Amino acid sequence: AGAAPHDGAAAAVPPFPLAELRLRRVLRESARDKAVFLHGEVSSPSGEGTDAVIILEKTPFQEEKVLDLLKKHTKLELQMRNDIYSTYHLYPPPELSEIKTTVVYPATEKHLQKYLRQEVHLIRETWEDYQNITLPFIQSQSFSIQWVYNILEKKAEADRIIHENPDPCNGFVLVPDFKWNQTQLDDLYLIALVQRREIKSLRDLTAEHLPLLRNILQEGKEAIAKRFGVPGSQLRIYLHYQPSYYHLHVHFTALGYDAPGCSVERAHLLADVIDNLAMDSMYYQKRALTFALRADELLLKKFQEAGRV
Amino acid sequence: AGAAPHDGAAAAVPPFPLAELRLRRVLRESARDKAVFLHGEVSSPSGEGTDAVIILEKTPFQEEKVLDLLKKHTKLELQMRNDIYSTYHLYPPPELSEIKTTVVYPATEKHLQKYLRQEVHLIRETWEDYQNITLPFIQSQSFSIQWVYNILEKKAEADRIIHENPDPCNGFVLVPDFKWNQTQLDDLYLIALVQRREIKSLRDLTAEHLPLLRNILQEGKEAIAKRFGVPGSQLRIYLHYQPSYYHLHVHFTALGYDAPGCSVERAHLLADVIDNLAMDSMYYQKRALTFALRADELLLKKFQEAGRV
Repeated sequence: AGAAPHDGAAAAVPPFPLAELRLRRVLRESARDKAVFLHGEVSSPSGEGTDAVIILEKTPFQEEKVLDLLKKHTKLELQMRNDIYSTYHLYPPPELSEIKTTVVYPATEKHLQKYLRQEVHLIRETWEDYQNITLPFIQSQSFSIQWVYNILEKKAEADRIIHENPDPCNGFVLVPDFKWNQTQLDDLYLIALVQRREIKSLRDLTAEHLPLLRNILQEGKEAIAKRFGVPGSQLRIYLHYQPSYYHLHVHFTALGYDAPGCSVERAHLLADVIDNLAMDSMYYQKRALTFALRADELLLKKFQEAGRV
Repeated sequence: AGAAPHDGAAAAVPPFPLAELRLRRVLRESARDKAVFLHGEVSSPSGEGTDAVIILEKTPFQEEKVLDLLKKHTKLELQMRNDIYSTYHLYPPPELSEIKTTVVYPATEKHLQKYLRQEVHLIRETWEDYQNITLPFIQSQSFSIQWVYNILEKKAEADRIIHENPDPCNGFVLVPDFKWNQTQLDDLYLIALVQRREIKSLRDLTAEHLPLLRNILQEGKEAIAKRFGVPGSQLRIYLHYQPSYYHLHVHFTALGYDAPGCSVERAHLLADVIDNLAMDSMYYQKRALTFALRADELLLKKFQEAGRV
């Protein structure tokens, strides 16, 4: 979605009547991110209520305005003092405490569901579970991965390719992930997409794939060091299970960046995957694997129907 | 450190002269956490400068004040509008936009180093590395773990124990982690401390420890479900490698909570550890393990001296 108004009239539309909003409930909040997701309602002149989602998020500090903040605070209250440590409540003037506000209006039930905090369930998937539940589910979904093929065939993003190994069996393409804007290295994020099309996920890997995986690890590190100056020792290199699309790919993120999806219940270090396969070619066709599913995900329903949750 | 003043005079000490602070540099910032760590300087009457660390962190939204925020904003600027989506800059009144401010004053070089952004390096530790570098380092450090023994012997925190299995070989004690204030379940965090004292870390585990590990997994889940109503499927249960202290312990955190130290380069799911040991008793005396070290950590220096980084 671009930033341009949707139609010529949009510029004349008055701001959303935030002050008249009735708060229905808090859909979700994140203490860490300093964000809150609200379900609100606005009455039309006829008195009918229309739903809206309002997202409030505090903004990061701007380095050039930090000094202003220290000097122009409206009030500073001492909270506690112990030896060399003290804490205060500082109340900044409005112009230095912007809140990013996003409104979805009118909002449908689907929007409300999207932002509602969902319970998350951990699944411990055995190989039998994979064959009986997960694999049939993947095959029934026919997720489109045309966008992956477009990159591999240079029909899209050809100018974004950072490195390519064209070998049809052991080759891959390295591209920046969409989440990374490439303007700073702090949140560096690249993806290696394998040339081969039949490897769905970690579950399909055997010792046969070791040359491919070693190429990705070695050449991926070298290409990132060369292009971005970030050494391999400062990269987190891993696969997701479950992945968000079933064409084998590997994530490269800056080690100092707390990237979404890098926690232990989803990420598998490529170096560990290689060692596991070198030790036992069938490691990923034997071992139980853990992953989390949101309450609204269809795959969870399949595990529930099978009596496995 | 308690919240009480350090001495009788403290109450009379005026607030830290924030407005007179000279900003030397930004030590670190976190766009995700909305926090910034500053190195400042204050001049004494004699003109000499004294260092200070100032930490600014925006505070989470409070549910009961969200409505006030929407109604009492001082200014609302439309940023972009597209179809049902619109974004705004909202400027709240000072009383609704508190910033938590922490001051360390006077600060030493050690304090400045602590908050300075440190480069992080990934280590791939082989079993030989462990024996030649890591183990001698651990033994030379003589980290005090008296606080762990105090808990096991009921000399401290006895009233905080959630569950105890007193078996000297396969038993453990489950206590809330210090980071968790127990007022909400969102960031639930408990620790299981084993009764046995000779198991330093993951590296010492063999199939001999399976009964102990299975007790922790099973009884830990049951105790948390019983006391806090959180089912096992909503818990992330894992060990750290490297751990922060070398007495075997297991972390239990809420699955929905993005706990520090739960990312793939540090956390090992207890269920995976059990399966690995069941498959191969010597798994953790064979396998390379990955972990990250900050540039100022002594263990990194040891790996560098050994030419392993």
